[in-house]
Amino acid sequence: MARYGAAIFDVFGTVVDWRSGVAAEVAKAFRAKGQVIDAEVFADEWRGEYQPAMQRVRSGNRGYVALDILHRENLEAVLKRHDQLDLFSDDELADLNHAWEKLPPWTDSQQGLADLKAIMPVATCSNGSIALMVRLARFGGLEWDCIVGAEIAQGYKPDPKVYQRSAAALGLQPGEVIMMATHNNDLASAREAGLATGYFPRPDELGIGVKTDLAPAQDWDVIADDMIDMAQKLR
Amino acid sequence: MARYGAAIFDVFGTVVDWRSGVAAEVAKAFRAKGQVIDAEVFADEWRGEYQPAMQRVRSGNRGYVALDILHRENLEAVLKRHDQLDLFSDDELADLNHAWEKLPPWTDSQQGLADLKAIMPVATCSNGSIALMVRLARFGGLEWDCIVGAEIAQGYKPDPKVYQRSAAALGLQPGEVIMMATHNNDLASAREAGLATGYFPRPDELGIGVKTDLAPAQDWDVIADDMIDMAQKLR
Repeated sequence: MARYGAAIFDVFGTVVDWRSGVAAEVAKAFRAKGQVIDAEVFADEWRGEYQPAMQRVRSGNRGYVALDILHRENLEAVLKRHDQLDLFSDDELADLNHAWEKLPPWTDSQQGLADLKAIMPVATCSNGSIALMVRLARFGGLEWDCIVGAEIAQGYKPDPKVYQRSAAALGLQPGEVIMMATHNNDLASAREAGLATGYFPRPDELGIGVKTDLAPAQDWDVIADDMIDMAQKLR
Repeated sequence: MARYGAAIFDVFGTVVDWRSGVAAEVAKAFRAKGQVIDAEVFADEWRGEYQPAMQRVRSGNRGYVALDILHRENLEAVLKRHDQLDLFSDDELADLNHAWEKLPPWTDSQQGLADLKAIMPVATCSNGSIALMVRLARFGGLEWDCIVGAEIAQGYKPDPKVYQRSAAALGLQPGEVIMMATHNNDLASAREAGLATGYFPRPDELGIGVKTDLAPAQDWDVIADDMIDMAQKLR
């Protein structure tokens, strides 16, 4: 029973474990300089710059620039705050910025995505750029039908145009598309934009002891335990 | 030896056999009305409206609209010319327009694409829309990394921005991307836009006895017999 014409996915946190992945690359980069740092704290700080940077685009104070550029600026901001910007060359910063393309999928993501792809088209609806999404998918063996989201909409979630333009690019009405995310606020915005919503928890996204988004905050259209379970519920 | 950062592909004619595929759907639609027509001639007439329709967009006389819309208008134009527009309901015309999503890949396309995907990212760079490319890929079992081309560039080949914007979306310089096509004019435009070029012949694209694009018209960067051979040459 395929109720929907396509499923589109949040990626960072929902499909891949950004925190472990970024921390691993950060630790490697500092180790190469003979330094040991708390790489997970650094990853959190780097990610902490994410929403304010996108907000400048969403508010119209800055035209759309790809997330890769924001990630690079944010990396430099965090390093500068710790007086560590001089530690890395321009090329080394570029390499480290590719950390966001080397994030491990959650253990059920690859299979769950393949199961869902057998039922309907599956696409990313992330704030990541097309290039970032392609490299991340190849790194993690994630087989998307296509990449929609921020870059094709030239904006950032939760701007409703990102959800709506993504549905339109798939040749579908918003209500024919189910947005999948582990973040309740992403789903709330998708629902306001007219999309159906699918939720599953990712209890380890923010590390041990952090308790956000562990349960559905609204009566989302489909609620599952993980991506494999989601595919079973939509079959 | 991966000389290039990504391979992007023309699709209609290069990867799939548009003429046989469209003719099969056209024949079926007329048969349902108790009519027998020369479906390949109809397919050629339908395709014959393709360049003039896109030219209105390329010349700036019309904003970008997805190829699906042009295909539908072109279908109606051909039917009208033959006084057959009243034969089909609106829904039936919409169904018939989906013919462009049901085109058989050439026999080497699926394997050749998988071989190439193992070497580098592979994407469509077609004038078809994202929705059309996704449905066509699922119909033919073609596993792209992503869909670039006309829709993300909001224009139509051979406008150089389509090739250049496609490379940029993959995070690459034009010269790092190889454009694959069986049509010499597509490759000439890609080369002018700064891309590398790969050619292989599709002798059956336009039917028996039609002799265009059977040989490379320039010293394209890579020349192969088909897509499997292309992957071998790029390995």
